[in-house]
Amino acid sequence: MQAKVHVTLKTGVLDPQGEAVRHALGGLGFENVASVRQGKVIELELTETDRAKAQSDLTDMCEKLLANTVIENYQIDISD
Amino acid sequence: MQAKVHVTLKTGVLDPQGEAVRHALGGLGFENVASVRQGKVIELELTETDRAKAQSDLTDMCEKLLANTVIENYQIDISD
Repeated sequence: MQAKVHVTLKTGVLDPQGEAVRHALGGLGFENVASVRQGKVIELELTETDRAKAQSDLTDMCEKLLANTVIENYQIDISD
Repeated sequence: MQAKVHVTLKTGVLDPQGEAVRHALGGLGFENVASVRQGKVIELELTETDRAKAQSDLTDMCEKLLANTVIENYQIDISD
């Protein structure tokens, strides 16, 4: 079973990395970029076959390790 | 117009960051994780209204700045 976890900064949290990318894009002539936010995507290959158990495990992983829930949101997508 | 760009390491390229996450998950008791790959997701807000032009600009951005095409793949998703 495969899963993708998207970890993105919450709205309102400053994103200097995204801002640096926006600035660099402007320097390359891409003037039509209003804002950039950068996040992480984590692709996991699970040996678990029970989808509900996988979902619950992934939520635990996000809460404990993958995301800093004070400043980050996470979204879990499971595919078979 | 909003766009998401996923940048992930090509198959066969070593991913020490992903491996570190897998190891840490194992240490937390998640034994059913076979492999982990970590990538980036870049969310862009574009002032461009022409979808074809946006697609072409985004491809240019990926080739020039957002992805290292020697070792990384990118995928562009545009939403209105």
